[in-house]
Amino acid sequence: MTSAYQHLTTTFQRLARFSHLSAIAGWDMQTMMPSAGSRARGEALAELSVLQHQILTSADVSSWLNEAEQETLNDVECANLFEMRRSWQQASLLPASLVEAKSIAGSRCEHAWRKQRPANDWKGFSANLKEVVKLSRQEAEIRAQANGCSRYDALLDIFEPGMTSAKLDRTFGDLKHWLPDLLQRVAAHQAQGHIERPVGPFAVESQRQLGLSIMKQLGFDFNAGRLDVSAHPFCGGVPEDVRITTRYNNNEFLSAMMGVIHETGHARYEQNLPKQWLGQPVSLARSTAIHESQSLFFEMQLARSADFLQLILPQVVAQFGAQPALNLDNFIRLNQQVKPGFIRVDADEVSYPAHVILRYEIERALISGDIEVDDIPTIWQEKMQDYLGIDTRGNYRDGCMQDIHWTDGAFGYFPTYTLGAMYAAQLFQAVKRALPNIESQIREGNLQPIFDWLQQNIWQHGCRFSTQQLITHATGEDLNPVFFRQHLEKRYLNQ
Amino acid sequence: MTSAYQHLTTTFQRLARFSHLSAIAGWDMQTMMPSAGSRARGEALAELSVLQHQILTSADVSSWLNEAEQETLNDVECANLFEMRRSWQQASLLPASLVEAKSIAGSRCEHAWRKQRPANDWKGFSANLKEVVKLSRQEAEIRAQANGCSRYDALLDIFEPGMTSAKLDRTFGDLKHWLPDLLQRVAAHQAQGHIERPVGPFAVESQRQLGLSIMKQLGFDFNAGRLDVSAHPFCGGVPEDVRITTRYNNNEFLSAMMGVIHETGHARYEQNLPKQWLGQPVSLARSTAIHESQSLFFEMQLARSADFLQLILPQVVAQFGAQPALNLDNFIRLNQQVKPGFIRVDADEVSYPAHVILRYEIERALISGDIEVDDIPTIWQEKMQDYLGIDTRGNYRDGCMQDIHWTDGAFGYFPTYTLGAMYAAQLFQAVKRALPNIESQIREGNLQPIFDWLQQNIWQHGCRFSTQQLITHATGEDLNPVFFRQHLEKRYLNQ
Repeated sequence: MTSAYQHLTTTFQRLARFSHLSAIAGWDMQTMMPSAGSRARGEALAELSVLQHQILTSADVSSWLNEAEQETLNDVECANLFEMRRSWQQASLLPASLVEAKSIAGSRCEHAWRKQRPANDWKGFSANLKEVVKLSRQEAEIRAQANGCSRYDALLDIFEPGMTSAKLDRTFGDLKHWLPDLLQRVAAHQAQGHIERPVGPFAVESQRQLGLSIMKQLGFDFNAGRLDVSAHPFCGGVPEDVRITTRYNNNEFLSAMMGVIHETGHARYEQNLPKQWLGQPVSLARSTAIHESQSLFFEMQLARSADFLQLILPQVVAQFGAQPALNLDNFIRLNQQVKPGFIRVDADEVSYPAHVILRYEIERALISGDIEVDDIPTIWQEKMQDYLGIDTRGNYRDGCMQDIHWTDGAFGYFPTYTLGAMYAAQLFQAVKRALPNIESQIREGNLQPIFDWLQQNIWQHGCRFSTQQLITHATGEDLNPVFFRQHLEKRYLNQ
Repeated sequence: MTSAYQHLTTTFQRLARFSHLSAIAGWDMQTMMPSAGSRARGEALAELSVLQHQILTSADVSSWLNEAEQETLNDVECANLFEMRRSWQQASLLPASLVEAKSIAGSRCEHAWRKQRPANDWKGFSANLKEVVKLSRQEAEIRAQANGCSRYDALLDIFEPGMTSAKLDRTFGDLKHWLPDLLQRVAAHQAQGHIERPVGPFAVESQRQLGLSIMKQLGFDFNAGRLDVSAHPFCGGVPEDVRITTRYNNNEFLSAMMGVIHETGHARYEQNLPKQWLGQPVSLARSTAIHESQSLFFEMQLARSADFLQLILPQVVAQFGAQPALNLDNFIRLNQQVKPGFIRVDADEVSYPAHVILRYEIERALISGDIEVDDIPTIWQEKMQDYLGIDTRGNYRDGCMQDIHWTDGAFGYFPTYTLGAMYAAQLFQAVKRALPNIESQIREGNLQPIFDWLQQNIWQHGCRFSTQQLITHATGEDLNPVFFRQHLEKRYLNQ
């Protein structure tokens, strides 16, 4: 007789196959699709999404979940069942009317934002955003009651299971305590050296070749993935066929280069998720923050280190030819420059956490009801001044209107960026303890021991363990921001 | 109250959205997907195909079809209902066990063929083919009983609704009567002139630019489609976003150029199917032969004419530079050269029908049971000798093993190539009657009147009319091979 658990694995396998098609069609939409295909594609993807929701929330799945709790399962199967229930609950909790209303309000707000942002039109934008916030609060309220937690924590849990605002307040509180001072000391430290900018143009095809060559060095499996171009870089596709993207600027190659390295970190995680469980929820990546920890491990911990920059500089020179800016010292300074600015996505790793903490504090207050949409610009202005010393008055475009996340109601996502950065520093520190000669090996291009360590400690586990278990097992302790601080002080102050 | 017909339109709209996703994922598989993605993609597409089959053959659809027959529908709705019933019947007739057995036998035969063909391994291939033929005969028998026709006619009807072997025997019989003699006269006629071959290499990027430039001239809408590369050229995607492909050979550019023109013919049909009915069966192309008539109208009737070749020669020279082979007379001779050979896909338009008639005669006898798989090589050899004067003894690779069609049981497809060529000639003749100055307009690049005529007479109708109605309405009579003969005699013998 087929067990309830077996029925569930068959159903989730089927759902994964449909997700495969929506992942590829979604990738195509961002990279290949001509404009006139947009409406039909949107309708096709929505139809599939309705189907997946129907399958997941069917009465069968609900009773199998209950029956399976009584069946004898091994550890992995238990973890798989846990994730299945989590998916089912995420999908079943909200009434269809709320899901639809939020989707419509989010699409409208995002669509209008694409024109309102360049026009600096806060008034127009805030009207749409109020509707999104209203519906997100309703969503948060329903989830909070089901989870027995606060509204904001219920949203946080979607992206980062197990994370709470109490825990965030501790870690981010620690960061806030030393970050502004660190930033000032780094500014003073870097004020002494002159940085030479590389002189372009940098042919797109050469930038692409450089990206491919570094991806190869970083172990990207080209039999199971591709590099393409999109307006907003991302890592998509499926574990068997990972699609990363970048965008090129003819006058500047470092952004695309570091962007490719960042997405390669995401990609290697995906490509090395446990093959034997693919198609089941337990095979998926642990969480948004752990995913980001892999991209930031590759980009920030590894690739912006002097050792790695020394390793790849010859590849850079091979593509663009020698020039004064491409001597090793200057190349390192270029990639380690700290310069607080308006825009989160352009921020260096020292100022980045300030951008995130600011957003976290605002969105948490917004969801709890402590502030309203109209309060955002003033609070934004105050916090940018406090944390980064930047004046954003009247500049909504490069201030509180710069991100896409809030437009479609993805409240609870921002903290994962900085959690990822902290996990990455903690993991890299553990790698250094496990591999004492790793710095010289990086300079020699022998990166395999690092990949083996990540494979062993992170990639192969999918989401079998909780984030806390995973990180404790890999590093000997739960999340600890001290490693991030030490990393920044070492890299930027030579301490 | 929702009518049965409305229920059907909603259901077929939903099926069309799923077909959209499978079309794009299928295109991706041929153009973008790295090798390791193959298995997961195959499983995902199969899962969607099972779902579509379930929806189409559900009890609801069956009863709505019956109820809708009693409802008051306009002409277009009647045609749509007719096509819905046809889809439903195609999907419902066969037992699932036969569909699965044929799919497995077909995949196995095709997969093995990819290695058996280069190895000239007829013995190994024929063992697999026998299983495919056995199952195809079973399929044909079931369809024949349902349609009240012969086995072969039942398969023909899948690709070319309304076509029968009796009608094919008349038209192909006519062709067979005059084609061998025409071929000999053309050979004698062309023996006099020397043809200079263009000297390469021809950079792939230049070939691509040439293709894009001709596609533009031919009215391809780049907001609703793309040109990419695949091992086997095809026209895929969806009407809102048509994806054509080609393949490039560094040493020779004419094949890719004419291939792009051919697929552009398919693409313009797809891009101009009736927008107001998209998502419904009546919006789809009429049939395989009518689709091929559009590609051959573009490639053979239009693009290989002296007028069109004169129009595009400057674009060719702009890409590759001037050289002796690229003077107008030689360029025309290159594109109008007749040279019987082993391979169907490489054949010129004069010898092509011989390849098709040979296959038609063999596959019809195979399905009816008049011959067996073991008889194929001898019959192939005799007919190649008779029709084209070519000796294929012992050469299975370039003989009866050259095509993919039979490997997965697509019996009944081959005739549509030559039907397409005949329809194309008949349509072009009608265009010339309607547009007396069209030859000079082609030389001047004013192709819009031709596109308008095709839009008016073919594209905008989808499959609202039967092939016979469509072609009679467009040209004043049903299929008549005399136009094809006149076209060949005029182009190749100046008669």
